[in-house]
Amino acid sequence: MTFPVVGMVGGGQLARMTHEAGIPLGIKFKLLSDTPVDSAAQVVGDVVVGDYRDLATLRDFAHGCDVITFDHEHVPTEHLRALQDDGIAVRPGPHALVCAQDKGVMRARLDALGVPCPRHRVVADPADVTAFAHEGGGYPVVLKTVRGGYDGKGVWVVRDETAAAEPFKAGVPVLAEEKVDFVRELAANVVRSPHGQAVAYPVVESVQVDGVCDTVIAPAPDLPAERAVAAQELALRIAEELDVVGHLAVELFETRDGRTLVNELAMRPHNSGHWTMDGAATSQFENHLRAVLDLPLGDPRPRAPWTVMANVLGGDYPDMYGAYLHCMARDPGLKIHMYGKDVKPGRKVGHVNTYGDDLADVRERARHAADYLRGTITE
Amino acid sequence: MTFPVVGMVGGGQLARMTHEAGIPLGIKFKLLSDTPVDSAAQVVGDVVVGDYRDLATLRDFAHGCDVITFDHEHVPTEHLRALQDDGIAVRPGPHALVCAQDKGVMRARLDALGVPCPRHRVVADPADVTAFAHEGGGYPVVLKTVRGGYDGKGVWVVRDETAAAEPFKAGVPVLAEEKVDFVRELAANVVRSPHGQAVAYPVVESVQVDGVCDTVIAPAPDLPAERAVAAQELALRIAEELDVVGHLAVELFETRDGRTLVNELAMRPHNSGHWTMDGAATSQFENHLRAVLDLPLGDPRPRAPWTVMANVLGGDYPDMYGAYLHCMARDPGLKIHMYGKDVKPGRKVGHVNTYGDDLADVRERARHAADYLRGTITE
Repeated sequence: MTFPVVGMVGGGQLARMTHEAGIPLGIKFKLLSDTPVDSAAQVVGDVVVGDYRDLATLRDFAHGCDVITFDHEHVPTEHLRALQDDGIAVRPGPHALVCAQDKGVMRARLDALGVPCPRHRVVADPADVTAFAHEGGGYPVVLKTVRGGYDGKGVWVVRDETAAAEPFKAGVPVLAEEKVDFVRELAANVVRSPHGQAVAYPVVESVQVDGVCDTVIAPAPDLPAERAVAAQELALRIAEELDVVGHLAVELFETRDGRTLVNELAMRPHNSGHWTMDGAATSQFENHLRAVLDLPLGDPRPRAPWTVMANVLGGDYPDMYGAYLHCMARDPGLKIHMYGKDVKPGRKVGHVNTYGDDLADVRERARHAADYLRGTITE
Repeated sequence: MTFPVVGMVGGGQLARMTHEAGIPLGIKFKLLSDTPVDSAAQVVGDVVVGDYRDLATLRDFAHGCDVITFDHEHVPTEHLRALQDDGIAVRPGPHALVCAQDKGVMRARLDALGVPCPRHRVVADPADVTAFAHEGGGYPVVLKTVRGGYDGKGVWVVRDETAAAEPFKAGVPVLAEEKVDFVRELAANVVRSPHGQAVAYPVVESVQVDGVCDTVIAPAPDLPAERAVAAQELALRIAEELDVVGHLAVELFETRDGRTLVNELAMRPHNSGHWTMDGAATSQFENHLRAVLDLPLGDPRPRAPWTVMANVLGGDYPDMYGAYLHCMARDPGLKIHMYGKDVKPGRKVGHVNTYGDDLADVRERARHAADYLRGTITE
């Protein structure tokens, strides 16, 4: 047996960090990237530049690999089925991945499993949105295109029927959901292998700003143990029922009246798991690789009492490297993770992790570094 | 300012692990490798295949980089001076590196600094070796070619004048040293930047088998605090006096009568520092990069009470990947670091790190995994 070839479709930062985790495992990492200068393409040895939407390209790529996995969830489901029919190991498989790719399918599957979700249904037109609103507490209502959304894109909060027209312009089915009065957002992330082994990471709190993840706190503060365990068991059950292989992020709403509702699913390494790169015994990236290779999973336990991740978004300040001097000198324990991406306003260009015993201090350190790197603050 | 280009000469596992550490820093890593399939060349995006001994090749490579550093210490000193004369940042510089490359120069410099060393002198021929022996306690004597040795190569323990002929056949000057009656070997590793900032890692115990590093224990057990600090201060002083930039490994003998003698110097990331990849807040690889880029250095402190590294050497069992199932299942906390190198008997093909509260347990876990990967044990 030789070291296997793992093929990842998509050259974004998730692939970059997966390659980083794969280096010590000695596995061979092959990348299908849109361009030669994508985040991951810059640092990977074996890169194929091509369009994942073209089946011939995808097939050629996959046939050089022992297993195929994904940096994003946009690969057409029918292409994945074609690869499987060729005998390629596609992990997670299309039958699972469709539940992350299509929000309408996801809601239907979770309903069938009795998993608590926000009130929801697929809506036909703006008038139907109004009907949906009236079936509950009225406007506002959340509208999502069932496919294609991420980082706040493809999601609208609409306050009347006129505003409800916008999402339908994409020509994609639209899912309506109640706007949940949540206290905070959590993420219960797990990793599952084809053997059925699974590990659950500590449940984390995820702070969103303008629909984009801003800060993650691990573990979620003030979360009673039985609720944390219940969230982990829910995520494990979803992973098993949907036959997910690899990392599964289960994004949750914690409601004002104490319920836990599933917001989104992602079947790939996820922003809410970046803290694990410095804060857990095994990172989400390493465990995702182990899982898709059907290897025994690594210890998911935290290495520090508190770990905080803060996203670094592009601001007006293009020189991220110039900010290193201050950030590194101020905090020798700061762990910087940059993605090699050009700075554009609001774009995820990196993240920082901090860890320690004092949550307020750990949060402040992460916040300061992220703001300084972005250019929001200058001292 | 854009992200800098760090050029590393040499495609071995040290370069592989330096690239791994460079990915999250967002720096651009360029590699000069002997072949396209060297350990690091397999995982790096920007690889130049060429001979570092050819000045034109080296020059071309260096002119595309902001700073040049090294995976090994074989680059001819005169080439490095030529690069410096071109205005290239060479770190560490040739004036420092020569003390790691030439053991005769190293001993002379350390003597001038009053640093305790084994009794030694450069010897002219086998009769001179006998004279050296008689100046002390007699044979056995350690002989080393002043240049080119590593991992036990270029080192002989000779017991009589006849055996003393062997090292001279290389045509390279020979250094004679007393065979030190040591209790154990230690390593005091530090990192220093052009600014003169330096950090000292915990002093570790290094267990050698057949002249090759076998196991490293961090921190060195039963080392009184004042002796540990003295060793760190010695290493920091050597780094400063020799103007080392980057990682400096100071290998030490702890003698039976309680003295600390300097055995070897290495000015690059070193086997005795691999434990830092999982056991310290900042790995030796990350800190080496920070130093050669003149960035503030990262926290060198340990993250666990005990961390043990065990080298994985090639044995009769070529299928390292096949051993993962057992090793990972047995120990979910095991951190595996393989180098992508073909298995040859006695060759360093990887290492494993373990960490925890109980030294005996941490050692056993590392030992078992390294032996199983090597094929020395099969269960």
